[in-house]
Amino acid sequence: MIRIGVVDTTFSRVDMAKHVIRVIEENMPEAEIIRYTVPGLKDIPVAAKKLLDQGCEAVITLGWVGAKPVDKYSYLAASIGLIMLQIMTGKHVIDVTVHEDEADDPEKLYEIAVNRAVKHAYNLIKLVKYGGEALREYAGKGLRQGGPDVGPIKE
Amino acid sequence: MIRIGVVDTTFSRVDMAKHVIRVIEENMPEAEIIRYTVPGLKDIPVAAKKLLDQGCEAVITLGWVGAKPVDKYSYLAASIGLIMLQIMTGKHVIDVTVHEDEADDPEKLYEIAVNRAVKHAYNLIKLVKYGGEALREYAGKGLRQGGPDVGPIKE
Amino acid sequence: MIRIGVVDTTFSRVDMAKHVIRVIEENMPEAEIIRYTVPGLKDIPVAAKKLLDQGCEAVITLGWVGAKPVDKYSYLAASIGLIMLQIMTGKHVIDVTVHEDEADDPEKLYEIAVNRAVKHAYNLIKLVKYGGEALREYAGKGLRQGGPDVGPIKE
Amino acid sequence: MIRIGVVDTTFSRVDMAKHVIRVIEENMPEAEIIRYTVPGLKDIPVAAKKLLDQGCEAVITLGWVGAKPVDKYSYLAASIGLIMLQIMTGKHVIDVTVHEDEADDPEKLYEIAVNRAVKHAYNLIKLVKYGGEALREYAGKGLRQGGPDVGPIKE
Amino acid sequence: MIRIGVVDTTFSRVDMAKHVIRVIEENMPEAEIIRYTVPGLKDIPVAAKKLLDQGCEAVITLGWVGAKPVDKYSYLAASIGLIMLQIMTGKHVIDVTVHEDEADDPEKLYEIAVNRAVKHAYNLIKLVKYGGEALREYAGKGLRQGGPDVGPIKE
Repeated sequence: MIRIGVVDTTFSRVDMAKHVIRVIEENMPEAEIIRYTVPGLKDIPVAAKKLLDQGCEAVITLGWVGAKPVDKYSYLAASIGLIMLQIMTGKHVIDVTVHEDEADDPEKLYEIAVNRAVKHAYNLIKLVKYGGEALREYAGKGLRQGGPDVGPIKE
Repeated sequence: MIRIGVVDTTFSRVDMAKHVIRVIEENMPEAEIIRYTVPGLKDIPVAAKKLLDQGCEAVITLGWVGAKPVDKYSYLAASIGLIMLQIMTGKHVIDVTVHEDEADDPEKLYEIAVNRAVKHAYNLIKLVKYGGEALREYAGKGLRQGGPDVGPIKE
Repeated sequence: MIRIGVVDTTFSRVDMAKHVIRVIEENMPEAEIIRYTVPGLKDIPVAAKKLLDQGCEAVITLGWVGAKPVDKYSYLAASIGLIMLQIMTGKHVIDVTVHEDEADDPEKLYEIAVNRAVKHAYNLIKLVKYGGEALREYAGKGLRQGGPDVGPIKE
Repeated sequence: MIRIGVVDTTFSRVDMAKHVIRVIEENMPEAEIIRYTVPGLKDIPVAAKKLLDQGCEAVITLGWVGAKPVDKYSYLAASIGLIMLQIMTGKHVIDVTVHEDEADDPEKLYEIAVNRAVKHAYNLIKLVKYGGEALREYAGKGLRQGGPDVGPIKE
Repeated sequence: MIRIGVVDTTFSRVDMAKHVIRVIEENMPEAEIIRYTVPGLKDIPVAAKKLLDQGCEAVITLGWVGAKPVDKYSYLAASIGLIMLQIMTGKHVIDVTVHEDEADDPEKLYEIAVNRAVKHAYNLIKLVKYGGEALREYAGKGLRQGGPDVGPIKE
């Protein structure tokens, strides 16, 4: 059996985990999902660490970042932490982040969040199931999460 | 018996630790609280490290950040340090930070600091007592510390 | 036999790996190339780590960075991760990065990407084959990847 | 016998170490002081590391930062290094930093530097002698180094 | 016999290593110099790591940074890497960096680069030969590399 970790926050204004878990359950029914909810962005790396320590093969994290410049520093610090965790463990931690200033309309922000989380859930599943070759056919194809793909420049 | 660490600074203009300790004593009377006071923000990570080395299950840190751009770099450096400490130890270090430029009115700043510290003290207690499921019912609910919750976008 | 790793992304709008692999195959036919495709920039360091763990002597990574300020923070975080990985392993991870705002014209961006990737593929091959003396004759010569060399100021 | 490390730079325009050493000698005569002078800011972390390796219980570092934006990045990098060193060793490295743009008048800058260095020397002594309780009575009291204390908002 | 490492890049527009090596040969004839040339700034930390692994007592790195904001992020990432390498190994890596926007006139930039590299070569030699006391007489004296010293504020 394979374990997949899901980390989310109470700071987020969208329950992205609900959608991520649905995608994993439908496409990877053999997986045991362990979910860990923390207050905010900067608590995410340690939660991911705890889930990896519990045997998760990979983790998906669902962050929500405020609009102030200092929130962007928190984003930077958390991103560095998640990357360091990954190179210390050799495990994927797929980092879904929504920035509150990506859209003025909350409805639009909701759509971005769900779209991004769902697409990255599929990415996670493919990487865990098939490894580094799983996404090869999309390499350089200008895929985007949170909105429509932009496509490759040529070909 | 469980040990909880509290780190605060002489730089801060509000004694947040007093409120945090009261909340822990009332809601987790079995906990032994170890408090460590340092001069400023950049001294916080090593104090948290020392408390974890003394057997604390988790630590709450109470930082206060100046308004100058360079103070924000100090914030970034300290944040990276606290996140690295957490992924090196697998323990929660709940990071309460107040930025001096969050409010012009000192009275308002005082309220932000106490509100944020108290709410995060409750977060810490829940995480230590019940783990990653403790905050699940609030996932994606737009909770805020330092002011009123903003709530979820939908549902 | 020597193994060379190639990491690329689905976020990129140019399939740089195709060109890199061609250069390696033509100039280092004895090499076994292992390619790992990830969703985006911040997933690159762990993929490089996985390839080094599989015995790659060196890795070339092909990142694509958006134009928004927050994308630059992602670039910074990924760069720190790749540098930390290198000093933890003592192996070269040649970091090819294209910034979406380097050119307004997509055609021009395509040229930059291919030029940069190809030139760095040659750099990688030289470093792996001949070590720290391989590039000595070009030291201080103002070489550029992604466009024409600017040359040395004197001599 | 206890060893205390002092790191300073040739870049600094004020000999802060002289004042720090005087304070330590007067208030902690039993301490052996080991001083390490480096060229500039980014050399400070390794000097502190060397002094900790030589058995110093704590180190005080005396940095001087230029006024250009890129100097602030050097400040950030050095700060991250000092914080990482502290969480790797569990030892205090009290970080005194003067920014060349804190005052236009060199005389004023001189005063800031000496005031900050001296006050932090006292902080260091208290922390080494009495640990995390040493500064408790000043917690949240709005102490400042480099100028007058601002005091707590209330009480 | 003592080994000294020199890292430089093909991106640089000045062959700083030539001058550094001359200074070392003249003032430390007993040293074996190992030089490692890499493509650019972000490749410098791993080259320094490789030279330390080959037994170098210290390394001097000769970086050249572009003028764009994103180049400054590369500078920050490389600086963090070099500092981390130093605190992981306890060895000096003297970091000579020239920013392309320090002067408009290439001739002037050339002078800055050679002056800075040569002065830091002397710093390196002194630190390796005499340790932390070597530069004590210049502590707080406002020395500068790349231009004239500014001197201390007082005395």
